[in-house]
Amino acid sequence: MALPDSNLKSSMPNHLTIGLFGFGVVGEGIYRVLEELPSLNARIKTICIRDPHKPRAAPSALFTTDAAQLLQDPDINLVVELIDDAAAAYRIVTEALRSGRHVVSANKKLIAEHLPELLRLQQQHGGSFLYEAAVCGSIPILRNLEEYYDNDLLHALSGIVNGSTNYILTQQAKGLDYAGALKQAQELGFAESDPSLDVEGWDAANKLALLLAHAWGIVTPPEALLRKGITRLRPHDWAHAREKGWRIALTATATRLADGKVGALVLPRFVDEGHPLYGVRDEYNGLVLESRLADRQFLSGKGAGRYPTASAVVSDISALSYGYRYAYKKLRAGTGGGLSDEFSLDVFVGYGEGTRTGASAFDEVYSTFHSGSGGYITGRITAARLRATAWWQDPDVSVIALPEGFTAPERTRVSRGKVRDLLIAEPVA
Amino acid sequence: MALPDSNLKSSMPNHLTIGLFGFGVVGEGIYRVLEELPSLNARIKTICIRDPHKPRAAPSALFTTDAAQLLQDPDINLVVELIDDAAAAYRIVTEALRSGRHVVSANKKLIAEHLPELLRLQQQHGGSFLYEAAVCGSIPILRNLEEYYDNDLLHALSGIVNGSTNYILTQQAKGLDYAGALKQAQELGFAESDPSLDVEGWDAANKLALLLAHAWGIVTPPEALLRKGITRLRPHDWAHAREKGWRIALTATATRLADGKVGALVLPRFVDEGHPLYGVRDEYNGLVLESRLADRQFLSGKGAGRYPTASAVVSDISALSYGYRYAYKKLRAGTGGGLSDEFSLDVFVGYGEGTRTGASAFDEVYSTFHSGSGGYITGRITAARLRATAWWQDPDVSVIALPEGFTAPERTRVSRGKVRDLLIAEPVA
Repeated sequence: MALPDSNLKSSMPNHLTIGLFGFGVVGEGIYRVLEELPSLNARIKTICIRDPHKPRAAPSALFTTDAAQLLQDPDINLVVELIDDAAAAYRIVTEALRSGRHVVSANKKLIAEHLPELLRLQQQHGGSFLYEAAVCGSIPILRNLEEYYDNDLLHALSGIVNGSTNYILTQQAKGLDYAGALKQAQELGFAESDPSLDVEGWDAANKLALLLAHAWGIVTPPEALLRKGITRLRPHDWAHAREKGWRIALTATATRLADGKVGALVLPRFVDEGHPLYGVRDEYNGLVLESRLADRQFLSGKGAGRYPTASAVVSDISALSYGYRYAYKKLRAGTGGGLSDEFSLDVFVGYGEGTRTGASAFDEVYSTFHSGSGGYITGRITAARLRATAWWQDPDVSVIALPEGFTAPERTRVSRGKVRDLLIAEPVA
Repeated sequence: MALPDSNLKSSMPNHLTIGLFGFGVVGEGIYRVLEELPSLNARIKTICIRDPHKPRAAPSALFTTDAAQLLQDPDINLVVELIDDAAAAYRIVTEALRSGRHVVSANKKLIAEHLPELLRLQQQHGGSFLYEAAVCGSIPILRNLEEYYDNDLLHALSGIVNGSTNYILTQQAKGLDYAGALKQAQELGFAESDPSLDVEGWDAANKLALLLAHAWGIVTPPEALLRKGITRLRPHDWAHAREKGWRIALTATATRLADGKVGALVLPRFVDEGHPLYGVRDEYNGLVLESRLADRQFLSGKGAGRYPTASAVVSDISALSYGYRYAYKKLRAGTGGGLSDEFSLDVFVGYGEGTRTGASAFDEVYSTFHSGSGGYITGRITAARLRATAWWQDPDVSVIALPEGFTAPERTRVSRGKVRDLLIAEPVA
């Protein structure tokens, strides 16, 4: 009558013997937390590092430089991967999963790019792979998408998922220019010395790919996602935002369309004061979820950095000690309709003097502004047509989503038939 | 080497046959959602109602008025309890748990008041009892406290957990008086015809009791919690809030103290613009969590109402189909140090003309204001001393926590030795 008590055992934690790769700030933080939390029933047996001569704040008997030794140790049932080297991380994670070990990683790029293979390895060899830290750091979004929000009910998610760019944009909103804001972010450790993964929106696209997998069971290569970073934002865009009382945020957005498919993209977005993301500043992340029953929910917290990452990794370790694995319910259910670019966006397109930008791709033009130093068009366009325009990747053109619920100024709204008259310049070719 | 794959089976949902008690707005909503979600592998077999003559939007074969029939049906392995009658709900939930069935309920009062017994029944008979909808409606807070935030790392939680009072306070902030705001809330279905559970803070105290159990493993009768509702707020308090640019929110707050114990209370609180709760309006709920690693996290969403409650109940049903139960990790770990009133609060105490309110209970008085129609004291006081004052429950005295990070005006700060000089009136007796 009652269910078999298969999960009663989940109230008794399994013992985890951990092999840790990497002992940077996050790795060291995790070591310390585990020392302080005997209740977790998890112990680090071996830590694999690159440089054996660097002084370490842990007993030297723990360290090795021999990855194979760690990966072949029959005592170790959990591998925690926290290293910078992408190729090495890939080898470690796949080899650990292939031997049936559980794996925790925060490496969004690795996971997003190899998701199909990583899913298969879990299924074939039985290990559980958790990566909560890979998306929005300390915000428990993946597990909540997996466990709490049911597939058919989730309409949309939209969020600031990259702390580096949000820090830069927060400084720019205060008046700093891009170069100055980037420099500050790098000095504070919020941005890498090569910031392109962040500022070009690649990191956000990786995270969006993971969100899509857990929210709707859609597995997509991150490079297939429509994506624009923050490097194209122009001083005129900031002036426009200030004039309107808006902020600019780099957002990852996904919306379930009427046909069951999902429209997804990474794009800068104007955010007005009433929107939950308006208050997400500096290195913080924030996510708005919309579902049929729960309506709009908002989660925010620190998206990256030593402690937030350690927090999510420790939480994954704790979940593993209770036998947790992502059920990939939506992937199994096969209800995900895949991605589609056939959805409409309200956008602001800014362009510089002499740039060839056209309004003809728009379904509806709301307003146009032109001056000697360039101008902008606001209007409605489909993602498919945006992607196909000649100016979408033009270095002198910015594309920014208009605020949610943006009301087009009626007087300047022009129907499609009149668009020709409003052309600023013909699209190239 | 690898963990036994005890949870691999959790990727295959168990079939749930549901007996539903109550077919009001939430019950009907759940019925509809389950019809639309065959992937959930859960089916309602019987719905127990009080009035067999009322027309219902479901096949009549589903309905019964015989609770015993439902509770003895060997097919039914999950009882979902959604009725108003507290005594009947208690009988249903306990009997269902006693027969080893799983139970989902949203009845915070019932659960908070009988938590020790409900915990025992789960343990003795093996049923899993989930009640995510009981705290903050659609916000998945209990499961996150249980699964995501580890005991030793969670410092504090503070939130707006009652939608009715938040709706009333939002209207009052706009200028409506209490009676008018309450009436509006009642008309919109946000407040009961007898609103005392909400406005006196009882509902918030029930939710705080559940939060304490899942956050720190502390089981407390809700009536033991220091509690003040919103009925004592005075027009002068609102004037003060407006002057300072603050809002007033009814908050449930718990903070881990230096000795490992937890200080907890329900109290109106001034909230300034920088605080995440500032933006939580109307019937929304919001929770701020502070932990050592994740730093400050914020969750918000609809706290009550038909759909948000249905959302949380459906999510519990889905979790049960995967064998989920609350592990009550912190309760088992026994690390909870219990509650303590030995913690300091920065408060604003407003009083009417002729009220006997004293400053002598304060550790430090920051400022005093007095006029013909009453006045206020701001200062630091321990919860224990606040509880012991003669004026704490005086109907003409308001007690409102000052904004987090409130900076006392230095010029009027007075050391304890001088407090006597500042007495507005001696404490009664």
